[in-house]
Amino acid sequence: MNIKITGTGSYIPKEVEKNEDFTNREFFNDDGAKIEHSNDVIIDKFKNITGIEERRYASAQQNASDLAFLAAQKAIKDAQIDPETLDYIIVAHNFGDVDKNSSQTDTIPSLAARVKHKLKIKNPYCVAYDLLFGCPGWIEGVIQAQSFIKSDMAKRCLVIGAETLSRVIDEHDRDSMIYSDGAGASIIETTQNPGGILSTISASYTLEESNFLFFGKTYNNLIDDNNKYIKMHGRKIYEFALNHVPKAMKACIDKTEVNISDIKKILIHQANEKMDEAIVKRFYRLFNQQAPKDIMPMSIQKLGNSSVATVPTLYDLILDGKIKDHDINTGDTLLFASVGAGMNINAFLYKH
Amino acid sequence: MNIKITGTGSYIPKEVEKNEDFTNREFFNDDGAKIEHSNDVIIDKFKNITGIEERRYASAQQNASDLAFLAAQKAIKDAQIDPETLDYIIVAHNFGDVDKNSSQTDTIPSLAARVKHKLKIKNPYCVAYDLLFGCPGWIEGVIQAQSFIKSDMAKRCLVIGAETLSRVIDEHDRDSMIYSDGAGASIIETTQNPGGILSTISASYTLEESNFLFFGKTYNNLIDDNNKYIKMHGRKIYEFALNHVPKAMKACIDKTEVNISDIKKILIHQANEKMDEAIVKRFYRLFNQQAPKDIMPMSIQKLGNSSVATVPTLYDLILDGKIKDHDINTGDTLLFASVGAGMNINAFLYKH
Repeated sequence: MNIKITGTGSYIPKEVEKNEDFTNREFFNDDGAKIEHSNDVIIDKFKNITGIEERRYASAQQNASDLAFLAAQKAIKDAQIDPETLDYIIVAHNFGDVDKNSSQTDTIPSLAARVKHKLKIKNPYCVAYDLLFGCPGWIEGVIQAQSFIKSDMAKRCLVIGAETLSRVIDEHDRDSMIYSDGAGASIIETTQNPGGILSTISASYTLEESNFLFFGKTYNNLIDDNNKYIKMHGRKIYEFALNHVPKAMKACIDKTEVNISDIKKILIHQANEKMDEAIVKRFYRLFNQQAPKDIMPMSIQKLGNSSVATVPTLYDLILDGKIKDHDINTGDTLLFASVGAGMNINAFLYKH
Repeated sequence: MNIKITGTGSYIPKEVEKNEDFTNREFFNDDGAKIEHSNDVIIDKFKNITGIEERRYASAQQNASDLAFLAAQKAIKDAQIDPETLDYIIVAHNFGDVDKNSSQTDTIPSLAARVKHKLKIKNPYCVAYDLLFGCPGWIEGVIQAQSFIKSDMAKRCLVIGAETLSRVIDEHDRDSMIYSDGAGASIIETTQNPGGILSTISASYTLEESNFLFFGKTYNNLIDDNNKYIKMHGRKIYEFALNHVPKAMKACIDKTEVNISDIKKILIHQANEKMDEAIVKRFYRLFNQQAPKDIMPMSIQKLGNSSVATVPTLYDLILDGKIKDHDINTGDTLLFASVGAGMNINAFLYKH
């Protein structure tokens, strides 16, 4: 018995927010000082580091659970399954449903319950819950689904990552340009087909790192705003990721007989292009190798960082032929990896 | 190999809020009409139905993750384990950390990451995540921990339920008197000792029921307040619970050889005394029996409904000899059950 992803779907919001759209923003540093450079310079530097040219925002009427539902519908259709046969619906997110122009998170009921409601599933034994694990939430959901299947609690699970980061950004923080909205979904189930999940790894670094991503006040001290927004210590995250993610990826491979040269693609959380490139470069260095060209498909240029949604969306887009010069074929070995708030890191090795 | 709860702990906030403390509140119905009865009548009726005389609120400096940490410390001490040997920290909640006088939920990083940080655990392979499953979240965490152990992903897990409902209540809603704050924790692990988890059941009813508990505006239309608060359709929840919870409890038992007469105690979510009594009465009726006296220990009179925290707190208090006329001894068979937002129901049968 193997455990495979038998269907994928993603929902990419329609609203395109280009880098130019940030030209008139007033950006401040974390100490409250106005950033001296012109916004053109800030945006240029931002693009060079993150690779982001534009990102997507949900429409005013949509919430994270709506995006999750739309991605789920596609994954169910792709897997050609009856949704009533699902044993679990796992929705990974960080901020729940945040209405446009609200600062409040709504998680009653859970987003998974909302998705199940929208899917009109009757079967009460399809258990719907939400999972909070930072950006690595979707991968963690896959790992949990695998556990439920292995322990005979499930045969078929729907795992979704959905987020509307546009609703929790401080517009006076340069980092607001990173974040975007989206949802990716997949069906995980037992199958007689070869391949599937070969190994997994999860880790939580909390001793020194738990506040590297946090909820904090606006950097603009000149306005009266007591709301909190998503915030990051970017430099610390960068160094942390480079020190720990390559090792975790290697540890995941070392659990198997798979050779580094067997890996066809690395699907990594779309956090920041330069950081992702540095992680993959260092990962190969652990094997005394150079990173092969085209090993790492990216979607960040056009989609930004949609947290839990990036990895399942990227996978869906590649399978759908929508990532230029990248394809995945039966039997290909893939490494999925992520890093984010917690700080959490995870990965799974997968034979397509 | 058996899977048992080897340590328990709970944290009961110090601030006591008595029913009299609600005497000067202005209560409205969900249609915005002021409730005609005097508050004395409202409070009397409330006490007769729910059994609640007083409830506990966290201090202004405490958040849900602080309560979780304090309960976790006690459970770790009780189990006499080295916290570095934990494979998982699972924190069930619904609203995250909500600062006193804030309307915002803070879940970056996850509450589990915060607890792990406070516990000063270094081991990165102790995976910390949050689980949202309504009030049944702690039981669901136990079920997930069992799965991780069975599928060889873990040997020892810390499962916590923590909530500060006092931070999300509409003071103009009578139901605000139900809610309270608290945290309960337990260590779940493999053991050579006899007993442990005998069977489990989980269900999500979302087709018609997903909005029975929801996040909504104040019932006081006379004030300018756009914030949302925890809200319930009490009558619908009552009917739902009576129709579905007894059957789920029976289904959990029917998975085993255990006889109804073997059950020593039922530890049920402290939602509402009359509802809990009606559930247990109907549960026994499914076996053509009458509910035995003293089958259902209750803590709601003094602690109110602290959501995910009620069941682990009740269990800890009984073991600690703090629930009058109730005790649990080695070999006793216990049924844990819960119902809440989703609407979710779950249960597990346990040999102490």
